[in-house]
Amino acid sequence: MAETLWLGVDLGGTDIKAGLVDRTGRARCRVCLTTEAEHGPQRVIDRLAEAIDQAAAKLSISLKDVGGVGIGAPGPMSHSKGMVYRPANLPGWDGVPLRELIQERTGRPTVLENDANAAALGEFWVGAGRDVQNMILLTMGTGIGGAVIEGGRLVRGHFENAGEIGHTIVQPDGLLCNCGQHGCLEQYASATATVRRAVHGIESGLPSVLAERHWAGRQIDAPAIVEAVHAGDALACQVWDETCKYLALACVNLQHLTNPELIVIGGGMSAAGEVLLERVESHRRRMAWKTFDDRPRLALAALGNDAGFVGAGYAARLAFEKT
Amino acid sequence: MAETLWLGVDLGGTDIKAGLVDRTGRARCRVCLTTEAEHGPQRVIDRLAEAIDQAAAKLSISLKDVGGVGIGAPGPMSHSKGMVYRPANLPGWDGVPLRELIQERTGRPTVLENDANAAALGEFWVGAGRDVQNMILLTMGTGIGGAVIEGGRLVRGHFENAGEIGHTIVQPDGLLCNCGQHGCLEQYASATATVRRAVHGIESGLPSVLAERHWAGRQIDAPAIVEAVHAGDALACQVWDETCKYLALACVNLQHLTNPELIVIGGGMSAAGEVLLERVESHRRRMAWKTFDDRPRLALAALGNDAGFVGAGYAARLAFEKT
Repeated sequence: MAETLWLGVDLGGTDIKAGLVDRTGRARCRVCLTTEAEHGPQRVIDRLAEAIDQAAAKLSISLKDVGGVGIGAPGPMSHSKGMVYRPANLPGWDGVPLRELIQERTGRPTVLENDANAAALGEFWVGAGRDVQNMILLTMGTGIGGAVIEGGRLVRGHFENAGEIGHTIVQPDGLLCNCGQHGCLEQYASATATVRRAVHGIESGLPSVLAERHWAGRQIDAPAIVEAVHAGDALACQVWDETCKYLALACVNLQHLTNPELIVIGGGMSAAGEVLLERVESHRRRMAWKTFDDRPRLALAALGNDAGFVGAGYAARLAFEKT
Repeated sequence: MAETLWLGVDLGGTDIKAGLVDRTGRARCRVCLTTEAEHGPQRVIDRLAEAIDQAAAKLSISLKDVGGVGIGAPGPMSHSKGMVYRPANLPGWDGVPLRELIQERTGRPTVLENDANAAALGEFWVGAGRDVQNMILLTMGTGIGGAVIEGGRLVRGHFENAGEIGHTIVQPDGLLCNCGQHGCLEQYASATATVRRAVHGIESGLPSVLAERHWAGRQIDAPAIVEAVHAGDALACQVWDETCKYLALACVNLQHLTNPELIVIGGGMSAAGEVLLERVESHRRRMAWKTFDDRPRLALAALGNDAGFVGAGYAARLAFEKT
């Protein structure tokens, strides 16, 4: 009998990534299509089905030979109900029974997972967390997402909304967040927040290698700031340091709450690499207690853009593998 | 065959509470002895053995008929190793193999649990959390402890030190904590912190019904502040409100991290009752996002001083019951 493969899909606002994953967690093929989210849910579902078909075609296998389908989708969504509600980056969605729709289109059992949870499952299975049982993933991009794995199991929470680390409050009465709260981590350590501080510094007249770019009307982004940090630019270094400080604070809080062995940092910002890890580590060493030596290890995500669909494939395997 | 009973012990710095618990979680007898911690570990272990013997004697049963012994002990300690390290309130302790010692003294299998974890297990089993699978306990006293139960299981964490909610940072670069960190919840919302703020207000010359007591050299404590709150004293109300605000912030962060159904507030401060719940709830309503309706319910602990030994008895049952 042929080996069972699992079809993992990562549904993002811009791209749909899909692939077939074997039982060891190896991606056997990859597909990337544009989401075309601006055309609404029906088009996105067609694109999902197309990505799934293309992945199967790449290995010349029939969908009926796939063990199951896993989809990582942006929240708010419900794993247990298989529903996607109103994600900010999927216009027109308002309660779509995505699990059922994909199940009908593919004829295969389908499971839905929050996108950060799917990425965490991927890193846990075959990435940065493959040797641990307790890890937390932080996805640092324009926003900050997260997921908690404890004792080898995903922590979903009673309302299926655990791991919203970007919306833990790190500054009482702090900056207003899109979510309506004040002082969320996302407002201090996301790429968006980092860029905002840099722009504010430049507009306040602070000297910076980034100033010319800004005044020329070219947008400053996180990679530009990281480049300026490497060049020793004072403003960029200060702005970056503040991002790392708030991230360190979040790591200390995670240490005391679920006490993981490992905190994995993924998402676009993790491309900064050592200049991120080192600064966070240095703040963390200063901030965290010395009472008890329980500081989790810090690591960069290892699977890059594959984490989501590989983890979604793992979710399918966990849900549907016959033992 | 007679019903199996479980012996639970709650080892505190002042008192040792013990009792026999049946399989439904009912305490069938209670014993309370002074710990005599100032005489060092050997004396405390004798007192523990004495409490255990007295509990068995109360029901006229032999220790050999007890299913097992559970002990809730102050941290830092290790459940897996059965060791108690150097608790602040047990002078002279520095790595005591308590599980083994009690096992030898009683001849019964023994399990060690962190004291906050034991209290949480008690509340989860037959207290405020008896109908939920995901809850967090906050014990508010001179310090702040905590425990996390997720999917019906205690979250111990990789370093067996999860649930240290009192040492999550709620104010960046805030007040120095005994643990060496700055800005810990414990420095803003514990009884100690609340009293400190009241005393500071009085010494700054703010009018208060508590002033006379303070200047007469009688110590102000949390119950006195709560009484003054009920009397409408402006300083007491302000001080209390700040405590509740930081507690609300911690609740928001717990909501986003493990997303529990219920947050249970226990410990000495919970005696304040509605004036605690209502103020925390009001801050929480203002602070927490409205994006998604996943605010955990807030409740006072239901078992009072029994929670620790009942939960320790439950830990023994979980560890040793033959199924």
